Amino acid sequence: MLALAGYPLGQRFRFFDTVEDAVAGQLAELRVGAYDDLEALSHFAEGLELVTYEFENVPVAAARFLAERVPVFPPPQALEAAQDRLVEKTFFQGLGIPTPPFYPVSTRADLLQGVERIGFPCVLKTRTLGYDGKGQEVLRGPQDLERAWTSLGGQPLILEGFVEFERELSVLAVRGRSGELAFYPLVENHHHGGILRKSLAPAPGLSPQLQAQAEDYARQVLERLEYVGVLAIELFEAEGRLMANEMAPRVHNSGHWSLEGAETSQFENHLRAVLGLPLGSTQVRGHAAMLNLIGFQPDFARILEVREAHLHWYGKEVRPGRKVGHVNLRADTWEELGARLRALEDAIA
Amino acid sequence: MLALAGYPLGQRFRFFDTVEDAVAGQLAELRVGAYDDLEALSHFAEGLELVTYEFENVPVAAARFLAERVPVFPPPQALEAAQDRLVEKTFFQGLGIPTPPFYPVSTRADLLQGVERIGFPCVLKTRTLGYDGKGQEVLRGPQDLERAWTSLGGQPLILEGFVEFERELSVLAVRGRSGELAFYPLVENHHHGGILRKSLAPAPGLSPQLQAQAEDYARQVLERLEYVGVLAIELFEAEGRLMANEMAPRVHNSGHWSLEGAETSQFENHLRAVLGLPLGSTQVRGHAAMLNLIGFQPDFARILEVREAHLHWYGKEVRPGRKVGHVNLRADTWEELGARLRALEDAIA
Repeated sequence: MLALAGYPLGQRFRFFDTVEDAVAGQLAELRVGAYDDLEALSHFAEGLELVTYEFENVPVAAARFLAERVPVFPPPQALEAAQDRLVEKTFFQGLGIPTPPFYPVSTRADLLQGVERIGFPCVLKTRTLGYDGKGQEVLRGPQDLERAWTSLGGQPLILEGFVEFERELSVLAVRGRSGELAFYPLVENHHHGGILRKSLAPAPGLSPQLQAQAEDYARQVLERLEYVGVLAIELFEAEGRLMANEMAPRVHNSGHWSLEGAETSQFENHLRAVLGLPLGSTQVRGHAAMLNLIGFQPDFARILEVREAHLHWYGKEVRPGRKVGHVNLRADTWEELGARLRALEDAIA
Repeated sequence: MLALAGYPLGQRFRFFDTVEDAVAGQLAELRVGAYDDLEALSHFAEGLELVTYEFENVPVAAARFLAERVPVFPPPQALEAAQDRLVEKTFFQGLGIPTPPFYPVSTRADLLQGVERIGFPCVLKTRTLGYDGKGQEVLRGPQDLERAWTSLGGQPLILEGFVEFERELSVLAVRGRSGELAFYPLVENHHHGGILRKSLAPAPGLSPQLQAQAEDYARQVLERLEYVGVLAIELFEAEGRLMANEMAPRVHNSGHWSLEGAETSQFENHLRAVLGLPLGSTQVRGHAAMLNLIGFQPDFARILEVREAHLHWYGKEVRPGRKVGHVNLRADTWEELGARLRALEDAIA
């Protein structure tokens, strides 16, 4: 999606991935290699103007190695801050951004101490490489301790308080090379089984106060990290207040609605930012929704019969639980959007 | 632009062009060959689901040869009707669609007879292969006869009445494989030196009557040709009436505004049509404008500073008089659009 947004900006692309069948290879030259293959990385960087990434688990060492050769945006320190849940939450707290309570866990003793501090329910998570709900165990009471430890013990962990939030939101923010800032309206996200299923933008009932709060948090993160590009922060809303859950230093699934739902998509704005071009308007066009297509190929014709449904199929092999596309919807009013969303859900079901 | 719109619909592409540096080659496999190289065409068609084109001077023979192997949309008879100005105008008249007066010219005697019938001013044009004002000579009086004949004589020509039109418009229409129809609002086009410079959509002051008239003409053309895909008809408006000038059996420069200005772009709708998918909404989003970038590379940053300016750079080598990109603008009101257009024209100047 970044490349599709980048060709009209006059850009050419070269991709690096660890697997041969990466779909980006359909759009431009694909170099395949391991992230620790310095020779491959070095060849990859040759002749490039800059490097960006859309996967937050790119090893920091690889990003730093590339950054010695070409500009890398977002900067490697953003990857570093986002890859480890403990570092990330400590970073949020250092900026005065509320988070759920947390406790680092390396040993079984740490776990017991953490539970004592935080109380049940709580969630034990791996500090690194978790995504889409993987590497997490919910502890509702003492009976869950053993299962959680057996499942996750032996690696760096973090125990987090289980927040009784009202809803999950995310803020998509952009910072240009000159420091210019732009923010998309807060998005309401619906997960199931730890995977994002649906986003609504702007978040229903969004107040200017909540938006201002989110923008203030995002601004602090962007500026502290000297960030360039699109950043997503996932938030919990509870009693009208926001708490940061995690951040992703890249274009984000909860910003995919912007392809048709905003004046400038997150993909175009990410590229404008890293290229040092002026940022585009983040204004939402009425009301937008995004539905992920996960683990199956729907009937495209049935989807496109829904008014203002736009298909984004990724060209990936369909596998259970894999995000293989999404559908964006747009409408002038919430009522219209609701009706179209129901029609779309029927078409997909 | 068709390919960029097609990837999200799950499509893969193979291109055929007569030149090695065709920009489509940046996006997918490019086969290079002559249009009369049947072996090259035959290899090109192997394994394809269907063929479409975005150049109206593809030889009809090549399209027919391919159509024996795979479905070709728009159908070759549309190319045939559009490639020869005499056939085209006769076709319009056969459907009751008004055109400027015309007279076929093969000899000098025909030219004199034509001038007698039509009167001055008139325009002598080649019947085939004309585009962007090439292959045309305006005759304002008898003194121009010799120059025009020297310049164009010796090939099939057509003499046309020079219409004192108020403005040039175009209608973009789509017909799906099932016969489903959709129409974009009439566009007002501004040419200079025979080349399209600017389009405004919808055409300022557009009345429902004029739109209905244009749609009626387009519908007749689409249905008579059993057309599939996007078709553009260029029209003259004079005294509240429309006259057909020419048609293009393809996505059209005067429809480029639809990328950000319509709910569904002409490129996506062309693909939906040829793929047999439901057509998307052609509703315009407020007011849109398109400015062509011709023969020079502007400062991208200056363009993108203009609110809601979207750059579409084609990645072509810049040459004098060559269309190398365009900029789309959008606004909620005409006043806003006018202000942004002035800012954009300043940025480009």
